[in-house]
Amino acid sequence: MARSHSTTGRHPHRQARDEDTVSTAERIIAATLQLLSSRCLHAISIRDIASAAHVNSALISYHFKNKENLYNTVVASQFQAYQQQVVSAFSTEGDIRKTICTVCHLIASFHHSNPCMLILYFRELTNPSPAYKTIIQPCIKEASDKCVAMIKAGIQAGVIAPATNPRHVTLSLVGMVNYFFMTRQIMQDLALEPANNVNEYIDFVCQTILKSIVVE
Amino acid sequence: MARSHSTTGRHPHRQARDEDTVSTAERIIAATLQLLSSRCLHAISIRDIASAAHVNSALISYHFKNKENLYNTVVASQFQAYQQQVVSAFSTEGDIRKTICTVCHLIASFHHSNPCMLILYFRELTNPSPAYKTIIQPCIKEASDKCVAMIKAGIQAGVIAPATNPRHVTLSLVGMVNYFFMTRQIMQDLALEPANNVNEYIDFVCQTILKSIVVE
Repeated sequence: MARSHSTTGRHPHRQARDEDTVSTAERIIAATLQLLSSRCLHAISIRDIASAAHVNSALISYHFKNKENLYNTVVASQFQAYQQQVVSAFSTEGDIRKTICTVCHLIASFHHSNPCMLILYFRELTNPSPAYKTIIQPCIKEASDKCVAMIKAGIQAGVIAPATNPRHVTLSLVGMVNYFFMTRQIMQDLALEPANNVNEYIDFVCQTILKSIVVE
Repeated sequence: MARSHSTTGRHPHRQARDEDTVSTAERIIAATLQLLSSRCLHAISIRDIASAAHVNSALISYHFKNKENLYNTVVASQFQAYQQQVVSAFSTEGDIRKTICTVCHLIASFHHSNPCMLILYFRELTNPSPAYKTIIQPCIKEASDKCVAMIKAGIQAGVIAPATNPRHVTLSLVGMVNYFFMTRQIMQDLALEPANNVNEYIDFVCQTILKSIVVE
Protein backbone atom coordinates (compact mmCIF):
# COMPACT_ATOMS: atom_id res chain seq x y z
CA MET A 1 0.00 0.00 0.00
CA ALA A 2 1.05 3.61 -0.51
CA ARG A 3 2.75 5.14 2.50
CA SER A 4 0.74 8.35 2.19
CA HIS A 5 -1.47 9.25 5.15
CA SER A 6 -4.47 11.51 5.52
CA THR A 7 -3.60 15.00 6.63
CA THR A 8 -4.35 16.17 10.15
CA GLY A 9 -4.72 19.79 9.20
CA ARG A 10 -2.69 20.88 12.23
CA HIS A 11 0.55 21.61 10.41
CA PRO A 12 0.14 23.43 7.13
CA HIS A 13 3.67 22.43 6.06
CA ARG A 14 3.08 18.77 6.76
CA GLN A 15 -0.27 18.98 4.98
CA ALA A 16 1.36 20.34 1.84
CA ARG A 17 4.01 17.62 1.97
CA ASP A 18 1.36 14.91 2.46
CA GLU A 19 -0.67 16.15 -0.49
CA ASP A 20 2.43 16.00 -2.68
CA THR A 21 2.96 12.46 -1.44
CA VAL A 22 -0.59 11.45 -2.28
CA SER A 23 -0.45 12.91 -5.72
CA THR A 24 2.94 11.31 -6.46
CA ALA A 25 1.68 7.88 -5.34
CA GLU A 26 -1.49 8.36 -7.37
CA ARG A 27 0.47 9.42 -10.42
CA ILE A 28 2.60 6.29 -10.13
CA ILE A 29 -0.53 4.11 -9.78
CA ALA A 30 -2.21 5.74 -12.79
CA ALA A 31 0.91 5.36 -14.95
CA THR A 32 1.28 1.69 -13.96
CA LEU A 33 -2.36 1.00 -14.78
CA GLN A 34 -1.90 2.65 -18.17
CA LEU A 35 1.18 0.51 -18.92
CA LEU A 36 -0.63 -2.64 -17.75
CA SER A 37 -3.39 -2.07 -20.30
CA SER A 38 -1.17 -3.40 -23.08
CA ARG A 39 1.63 -5.29 -21.32
CA CYS A 40 1.86 -7.80 -18.50
CA LEU A 41 3.69 -6.90 -15.30
CA HIS A 42 6.95 -8.66 -16.08
CA ALA A 43 7.25 -6.81 -19.38
CA ILE A 44 7.19 -3.48 -17.50
CA SER A 45 10.26 -2.15 -15.69
CA ILE A 46 10.44 0.28 -12.79
CA ARG A 47 12.20 2.55 -15.29
CA ASP A 48 9.17 2.39 -17.67
CA ILE A 49 6.87 3.33 -14.79
CA ALA A 50 9.11 6.17 -13.60
CA SER A 51 9.28 7.57 -17.10
CA ALA A 52 5.49 7.30 -17.67
CA ALA A 53 4.72 8.90 -14.28
CA HIS A 54 7.41 11.58 -14.72
CA VAL A 55 8.99 10.71 -11.37
CA ASN A 56 12.41 9.51 -10.23
CA SER A 57 12.67 5.70 -9.85
CA ALA A 58 13.66 6.21 -6.19
CA LEU A 59 10.20 7.63 -5.47
CA ILE A 60 8.60 4.35 -6.62
CA SER A 61 10.75 2.42 -4.14
CA TYR A 62 9.95 5.00 -1.46
CA HIS A 63 6.18 4.72 -1.94
CA PHE A 64 5.76 1.05 -2.88
CA LYS A 65 8.99 -0.75 -1.94
CA ASN A 66 8.94 -2.89 -5.11
CA LYS A 67 7.07 -3.58 -8.36
CA GLU A 68 4.97 -6.40 -6.85
CA ASN A 69 3.70 -4.13 -4.05
CA LEU A 70 2.87 -1.44 -6.57
CA TYR A 71 1.02 -3.98 -8.73
CA ASN A 72 -0.98 -5.16 -5.71
CA THR A 73 -1.95 -1.57 -4.92
CA VAL A 74 -3.08 -1.05 -8.52
CA VAL A 75 -5.21 -4.23 -8.54
CA ALA A 76 -6.65 -3.43 -5.10
CA SER A 77 -7.62 0.09 -6.17
CA GLN A 78 -9.50 -1.24 -9.22
CA PHE A 79 -11.38 -3.97 -7.35
CA GLN A 80 -12.18 -1.73 -4.38
CA ALA A 81 -13.62 0.83 -6.78
CA TYR A 82 -15.73 -1.94 -8.37
CA GLN A 83 -17.07 -2.97 -4.96
CA GLN A 84 -17.89 0.60 -3.98
CA GLN A 85 -19.37 1.75 -7.27
CA VAL A 86 -21.06 -1.42 -8.55
CA VAL A 87 -21.44 -4.24 -6.03
CA SER A 88 -22.99 -1.91 -3.44
CA ALA A 89 -25.94 -1.47 -5.85
CA PHE A 90 -26.77 -5.22 -5.81
CA SER A 91 -29.71 -4.61 -3.51
CA THR A 92 -32.45 -6.87 -2.14
CA GLU A 93 -34.75 -3.87 -1.57
CA GLY A 94 -37.08 -2.18 -4.04
CA ASP A 95 -38.36 -3.30 -7.45
CA ILE A 96 -36.05 -6.03 -8.76
CA ARG A 97 -36.77 -5.02 -12.38
CA LYS A 98 -35.48 -1.52 -11.72
CA THR A 99 -32.52 -2.83 -9.69
CA ILE A 100 -31.41 -5.16 -12.52
CA CYS A 101 -31.45 -2.30 -15.04
CA THR A 102 -29.56 -0.02 -12.63
CA VAL A 103 -26.97 -2.74 -12.03
CA CYS A 104 -26.42 -3.41 -15.79
CA HIS A 105 -25.92 0.29 -16.51
CA LEU A 106 -23.62 0.68 -13.47
CA ILE A 107 -21.39 -2.22 -14.57
CA ALA A 108 -21.24 -0.68 -18.05
CA SER A 109 -20.38 2.79 -16.83
CA PHE A 110 -17.72 1.37 -14.49
CA HIS A 111 -15.95 -0.45 -17.35
CA HIS A 112 -16.34 2.58 -19.58
CA SER A 113 -14.46 4.68 -16.97
CA ASN A 114 -12.04 1.89 -15.93
CA PRO A 115 -11.05 0.16 -19.16
CA CYS A 116 -8.13 -1.67 -17.51
CA MET A 117 -10.08 -3.60 -14.89
CA LEU A 118 -11.20 -6.46 -17.15
CA ILE A 119 -7.73 -6.65 -18.68
CA LEU A 120 -6.16 -7.12 -15.24
CA TYR A 121 -8.91 -9.56 -14.25
CA PHE A 122 -8.46 -11.86 -17.24
CA ARG A 123 -4.70 -11.75 -17.06
CA GLU A 124 -4.99 -12.88 -13.42
CA LEU A 125 -7.36 -15.70 -14.41
CA THR A 126 -4.80 -17.23 -16.78
CA ASN A 127 -1.60 -16.25 -15.00
CA PRO A 128 -2.40 -15.51 -11.35
CA SER A 129 -0.23 -13.39 -9.07
CA PRO A 130 -0.71 -13.35 -5.25
CA ALA A 131 -3.38 -10.66 -5.86
CA TYR A 132 -5.67 -13.33 -7.32
CA LYS A 133 -6.28 -14.98 -3.95
CA THR A 134 -6.05 -11.94 -1.68
CA ILE A 135 -7.89 -9.30 -3.72
CA ILE A 136 -9.74 -10.75 -6.71
CA GLN A 137 -11.32 -13.92 -5.28
CA PRO A 138 -12.90 -12.12 -2.28
CA CYS A 139 -14.26 -9.34 -4.52
CA ILE A 140 -15.82 -11.75 -7.05
CA LYS A 141 -17.21 -13.91 -4.22
CA GLU A 142 -18.91 -10.91 -2.63
CA ALA A 143 -20.23 -9.67 -5.98
CA SER A 144 -21.61 -13.11 -6.84
CA ASP A 145 -23.21 -13.65 -3.42
CA LYS A 146 -24.86 -10.24 -3.45
CA CYS A 147 -26.17 -10.71 -7.01
CA VAL A 148 -27.60 -14.12 -6.08
CA ALA A 149 -29.26 -12.62 -2.96
CA MET A 150 -30.75 -9.90 -5.17
CA ILE A 151 -32.31 -12.47 -7.55
CA LYS A 152 -33.55 -14.58 -4.62
CA ALA A 153 -35.27 -11.51 -3.15
CA GLY A 154 -37.02 -11.06 -6.51
CA ILE A 155 -38.23 -14.68 -6.37
CA GLN A 156 -39.43 -14.15 -2.77
CA ALA A 157 -41.30 -11.03 -3.86
CA GLY A 158 -43.10 -13.09 -6.52
CA VAL A 159 -41.68 -11.01 -9.39
CA ILE A 160 -39.14 -13.57 -10.63
CA ALA A 161 -40.17 -17.12 -11.60
CA PRO A 162 -39.49 -19.54 -8.71
CA ALA A 163 -37.60 -22.05 -10.92
CA THR A 164 -35.03 -19.39 -11.87
CA ASN A 165 -31.40 -20.34 -11.16
CA PRO A 166 -29.86 -17.17 -9.62
CA ARG A 167 -26.29 -18.15 -10.63
CA HIS A 168 -27.36 -18.55 -14.27
CA VAL A 169 -28.90 -15.09 -14.20
CA THR A 170 -25.82 -13.57 -12.53
CA LEU A 171 -23.38 -15.13 -14.99
CA SER A 172 -25.38 -14.31 -18.11
CA LEU A 173 -26.02 -10.72 -17.05
CA VAL A 174 -22.38 -10.00 -16.24
CA GLY A 175 -21.26 -11.97 -19.31
CA MET A 176 -23.41 -9.95 -21.73
CA VAL A 177 -22.21 -6.63 -20.30
CA ASN A 178 -18.52 -7.44 -19.73
CA TYR A 179 -18.07 -9.16 -23.10
CA PHE A 180 -19.13 -5.94 -24.79
CA PHE A 181 -16.19 -4.11 -23.18
CA MET A 182 -13.76 -6.95 -23.75
CA THR A 183 -14.45 -7.02 -27.49
CA ARG A 184 -15.11 -3.32 -28.04
CA GLN A 185 -11.71 -2.84 -29.71
CA ILE A 186 -12.36 -5.40 -32.46
CA MET A 187 -15.93 -4.14 -32.96
CA GLN A 188 -14.48 -0.67 -33.53
CA ASP A 189 -11.73 -2.00 -35.79
CA LEU A 190 -14.29 -3.89 -37.90
CA ALA A 191 -16.92 -1.11 -37.69
CA LEU A 192 -19.40 -3.52 -36.10
CA GLU A 193 -22.24 -2.12 -34.02
CA PRO A 194 -22.92 -1.70 -31.12
CA ALA A 195 -19.29 -0.63 -30.55
CA ASN A 196 -20.28 3.01 -30.12
CA ASN A 197 -23.79 2.52 -28.83
CA VAL A 198 -23.33 1.04 -25.40
CA ASN A 199 -26.56 2.40 -23.86
CA GLU A 200 -28.78 0.89 -26.54
CA TYR A 201 -27.04 -2.47 -26.12
CA ILE A 202 -27.32 -2.37 -22.30
CA ASP A 203 -31.07 -1.65 -22.63
CA PHE A 204 -31.31 -4.77 -24.82
CA VAL A 205 -29.44 -6.77 -22.14
CA CYS A 206 -31.87 -5.60 -19.42
CA GLN A 207 -34.93 -6.48 -21.51
CA THR A 208 -33.44 -9.86 -22.43
CA ILE A 209 -32.76 -10.80 -18.80
CA LEU A 210 -36.14 -9.52 -17.57
CA LYS A 211 -38.12 -11.31 -20.31
CA SER A 212 -36.32 -14.50 -19.37
CA ILE A 213 -36.99 -14.44 -15.60
CA VAL A 214 -39.95 -12.20 -14.73
CA VAL A 215 -43.25 -14.01 -14.03
CA GLU A 216 -45.69 -13.31 -16.88
CA MET B 1 3.26 -22.40 -41.79
CA ALA B 2 4.67 -25.87 -41.13
CA ARG B 3 6.82 -27.19 -43.91
CA SER B 4 5.16 -30.60 -43.79
CA HIS B 5 3.37 -31.72 -46.94
CA SER B 6 0.69 -34.29 -47.58
CA THR B 7 2.00 -37.68 -48.51
CA THR B 8 1.70 -38.95 -52.07
CA GLY B 9 1.68 -42.61 -51.11
CA ARG B 10 4.09 -43.47 -53.92
CA HIS B 11 7.21 -43.83 -51.82
CA PRO B 12 6.75 -45.70 -48.57
CA HIS B 13 10.03 -44.28 -47.21
CA ARG B 14 9.12 -40.73 -48.01
CA GLN B 15 5.67 -41.29 -46.55
CA ALA B 16 7.16 -42.44 -43.26
CA ARG B 17 9.49 -39.44 -43.19
CA ASP B 18 6.59 -37.04 -43.97
CA GLU B 19 4.49 -38.52 -41.21
CA ASP B 20 7.32 -37.98 -38.76
CA THR B 21 7.54 -34.42 -40.00
CA VAL B 22 3.83 -33.84 -39.50
CA SER B 23 3.84 -35.27 -36.04
CA THR B 24 6.92 -33.28 -34.99
CA ALA B 25 5.37 -30.04 -36.26
CA GLU B 26 2.10 -30.89 -34.55
CA ARG B 27 3.88 -31.72 -31.31
CA ILE B 28 5.63 -28.36 -31.41
CA ILE B 29 2.32 -26.57 -32.07
CA ALA B 30 0.57 -28.39 -29.22
CA ALA B 31 3.41 -27.65 -26.78
CA THR B 32 3.43 -23.97 -27.76
CA LEU B 33 -0.33 -23.72 -27.29
CA GLN B 34 0.00 -25.30 -23.86
CA LEU B 35 2.73 -22.83 -22.83
CA LEU B 36 0.68 -19.91 -24.19
CA SER B 37 -2.22 -20.80 -21.91
CA SER B 38 -0.44 -19.25 -18.94
CA ARG B 39 2.28 -17.05 -20.44
CA CYS B 40 2.49 -14.50 -23.22
CA LEU B 41 4.70 -15.16 -26.24
CA HIS B 42 7.65 -13.04 -25.18
CA ALA B 43 7.84 -14.87 -21.85
CA ILE B 44 8.34 -18.17 -23.71
CA SER B 45 11.72 -19.11 -25.22
CA ILE B 46 12.45 -21.50 -28.07
CA ARG B 47 14.20 -23.58 -25.41
CA ASP B 48 10.97 -23.78 -23.33
CA ILE B 49 9.07 -24.96 -26.40
CA ALA B 50 11.74 -27.51 -27.37
CA SER B 51 11.72 -28.91 -23.85
CA ALA B 52 7.90 -29.09 -23.64
CA ALA B 53 7.65 -30.74 -27.08
CA HIS B 54 10.59 -33.10 -26.38
CA VAL B 55 12.35 -32.02 -29.57
CA ASN B 56 15.66 -30.44 -30.40
CA SER B 57 15.55 -26.62 -30.77
CA ALA B 58 16.92 -26.98 -34.30
CA LEU B 59 13.73 -28.78 -35.34
CA ILE B 60 11.68 -25.73 -34.36
CA SER B 61 13.79 -23.54 -36.64
CA TYR B 62 13.55 -26.19 -39.36
CA HIS B 63 9.75 -26.35 -39.24
CA PHE B 64 8.81 -22.77 -38.37
CA LYS B 65 11.88 -20.59 -39.03
CA ASN B 66 11.29 -18.47 -35.90
CA LYS B 67 9.06 -18.03 -32.82
CA GLU B 68 6.81 -15.48 -34.55
CA ASN B 69 6.07 -17.86 -37.44
CA LEU B 70 5.33 -20.63 -34.98
CA TYR B 71 2.99 -18.34 -33.02
CA ASN B 72 1.18 -17.37 -36.24
CA THR B 73 0.70 -21.05 -37.08
CA VAL B 74 -0.70 -21.71 -33.61
CA VAL B 75 -3.16 -18.80 -33.80
CA ALA B 76 -4.18 -19.75 -37.36
CA SER B 77 -4.84 -23.36 -36.38
CA GLN B 78 -7.12 -22.27 -33.51
CA PHE B 79 -9.12 -19.77 -35.55
CA GLN B 80 -9.38 -22.08 -38.57
CA ALA B 81 -10.74 -24.80 -36.31
CA TYR B 82 -13.29 -22.29 -34.93
CA GLN B 83 -14.41 -21.41 -38.45
CA GLN B 84 -14.72 -25.04 -39.50
CA GLN B 85 -16.36 -26.38 -36.35
CA VAL B 86 -18.51 -23.43 -35.25
CA VAL B 87 -18.98 -20.67 -37.82
CA SER B 88 -20.01 -23.14 -40.53
CA ALA B 89 -23.10 -23.93 -38.40
CA PHE B 90 -24.35 -20.31 -38.54
CA SER B 91 -26.96 -21.26 -41.12
CA THR B 92 -29.81 -19.33 -42.76
CA GLU B 93 -31.69 -22.58 -43.53
CA GLY B 94 -34.02 -24.54 -41.27
CA ASP B 95 -35.74 -23.59 -38.01
CA ILE B 96 -33.90 -20.61 -36.50
CA ARG B 97 -34.84 -21.73 -32.95
CA LYS B 98 -33.08 -25.04 -33.47
CA THR B 99 -30.12 -23.39 -35.22
CA ILE B 100 -29.57 -20.96 -32.31
CA CYS B 101 -29.51 -23.81 -29.80
CA THR B 102 -27.13 -25.83 -31.99
CA VAL B 103 -24.84 -22.83 -32.35
CA CYS B 104 -24.73 -22.13 -28.58
CA HIS B 105 -23.86 -25.73 -27.78
CA LEU B 106 -21.27 -25.85 -30.60
CA ILE B 107 -19.50 -22.72 -29.30
CA ALA B 108 -19.49 -24.25 -25.82
CA SER B 109 -18.13 -27.60 -26.93
CA PHE B 110 -15.45 -25.86 -29.01
CA HIS B 111 -14.16 -23.86 -26.01
CA HIS B 112 -14.39 -26.94 -23.82
CA SER B 113 -12.05 -28.78 -26.22
CA ASN B 114 -9.90 -25.73 -27.05
CA PRO B 115 -9.43 -23.90 -23.74
CA CYS B 116 -6.58 -21.73 -25.13
CA MET B 117 -8.50 -20.04 -27.94
CA LEU B 118 -10.16 -17.34 -25.80
CA ILE B 119 -6.89 -16.75 -23.95
CA LEU B 120 -5.07 -16.08 -27.24
CA TYR B 121 -7.98 -13.97 -28.49
CA PHE B 122 -8.07 -11.65 -25.47
CA ARG B 123 -4.32 -11.32 -25.31
CA GLU B 124 -4.42 -10.23 -28.96
CA LEU B 125 -7.18 -7.70 -28.23
CA THR B 126 -5.05 -5.90 -25.63
CA ASN B 127 -1.60 -6.48 -27.10
CA PRO B 128 -1.99 -7.30 -30.81
CA SER B 129 0.64 -9.14 -32.87
CA PRO B 130 0.54 -9.21 -36.70
CA ALA B 131 -1.87 -12.20 -36.33
CA TYR B 132 -4.58 -9.83 -35.12
CA LYS B 133 -5.05 -8.22 -38.54
CA THR B 134 -4.25 -11.21 -40.75
CA ILE B 135 -5.96 -14.06 -38.87
CA ILE B 136 -8.25 -12.84 -36.08
CA GLN B 137 -10.02 -9.88 -37.66
CA PRO B 138 -11.10 -11.84 -40.80
CA CYS B 139 -12.35 -14.75 -38.68
CA ILE B 140 -14.40 -12.55 -36.32
CA LYS B 141 -15.75 -10.56 -39.27
CA GLU B 142 -16.94 -13.73 -41.01
CA ALA B 143 -18.43 -15.13 -37.79
CA SER B 144 -20.27 -11.88 -37.07
CA ASP B 145 -21.58 -11.51 -40.63
CA LYS B 146 -22.83 -15.10 -40.73
CA CYS B 147 -24.51 -14.82 -37.32
CA VAL B 148 -26.23 -11.57 -38.39
CA ALA B 149 -27.40 -13.23 -41.66
CA MET B 150 -28.77 -16.12 -39.58
CA ILE B 151 -30.83 -13.77 -37.37
CA LYS B 152 -32.03 -11.80 -40.42
CA ALA B 153 -33.24 -15.04 -42.05
CA GLY B 154 -35.23 -15.71 -38.86
CA ILE B 155 -36.83 -12.26 -39.13
CA GLN B 156 -37.61 -12.88 -42.83
CA ALA B 157 -39.22 -16.23 -41.90
CA GLY B 158 -41.51 -14.41 -39.44
CA VAL B 159 -40.11 -16.32 -36.42
CA ILE B 160 -38.01 -13.48 -34.96
CA ALA B 161 -39.54 -10.09 -34.10
CA PRO B 162 -38.88 -7.59 -36.94
CA ALA B 163 -37.49 -4.90 -34.58
CA THR B 164 -34.73 -7.24 -33.37
CA ASN B 165 -31.18 -5.87 -33.73
CA PRO B 166 -29.16 -8.82 -35.11
CA ARG B 167 -25.84 -7.45 -33.79
CA HIS B 168 -27.28 -7.18 -30.25
CA VAL B 169 -28.39 -10.81 -30.44
CA THR B 170 -25.01 -11.95 -31.81
CA LEU B 171 -23.00 -10.13 -29.16
CA SER B 172 -25.18 -11.19 -26.22
CA LEU B 173 -25.31 -14.82 -27.33
CA VAL B 174 -21.54 -15.10 -27.79
CA GLY B 175 -20.96 -13.04 -24.63
CA MET B 176 -23.07 -15.31 -22.41
CA VAL B 177 -21.36 -18.47 -23.71
CA ASN B 178 -17.76 -17.22 -23.93
CA TYR B 179 -17.83 -15.48 -20.54
CA PHE B 180 -18.64 -18.82 -18.94
CA PHE B 181 -15.38 -20.28 -20.25
CA MET B 182 -13.35 -17.18 -19.48
CA THR B 183 -14.39 -17.21 -15.83
CA ARG B 184 -14.68 -20.95 -15.32
CA GLN B 185 -11.42 -21.05 -13.32
CA ILE B 186 -12.60 -18.59 -10.67
CA MET B 187 -16.04 -20.27 -10.50
CA GLN B 188 -14.25 -23.55 -9.79
CA ASP B 189 -11.90 -21.93 -7.28
CA LEU B 190 -14.84 -20.36 -5.42
CA ALA B 191 -17.10 -23.41 -5.86
CA LEU B 192 -19.67 -21.31 -7.70
CA GLU B 193 -22.12 -23.03 -10.01
CA PRO B 194 -22.50 -23.52 -12.96
CA ALA B 195 -18.73 -24.13 -13.21
CA ASN B 196 -19.23 -27.86 -13.69
CA ASN B 197 -22.62 -27.77 -15.30
CA VAL B 198 -22.05 -26.24 -18.70
CA ASN B 199 -24.94 -27.95 -20.51
CA GLU B 200 -27.56 -26.70 -18.07
CA TYR B 201 -26.19 -23.17 -18.33
CA ILE B 202 -26.11 -23.29 -22.16
CA ASP B 203 -29.75 -24.44 -22.18
CA PHE B 204 -30.55 -21.39 -20.04
CA VAL B 205 -28.69 -19.17 -22.55
CA CYS B 206 -30.71 -20.61 -25.48
CA GLN B 207 -34.02 -20.10 -23.68
CA THR B 208 -33.04 -16.58 -22.65
CA ILE B 209 -32.14 -15.55 -26.21
CA LEU B 210 -35.21 -17.20 -27.74
CA LYS B 211 -37.64 -15.66 -25.20
CA SER B 212 -36.13 -12.28 -26.00
CA ILE B 213 -36.43 -12.40 -29.81
CA VAL B 214 -39.03 -14.96 -30.94
CA VAL B 215 -42.45 -13.55 -31.95
CA GLU B 216 -45.05 -14.55 -29.34
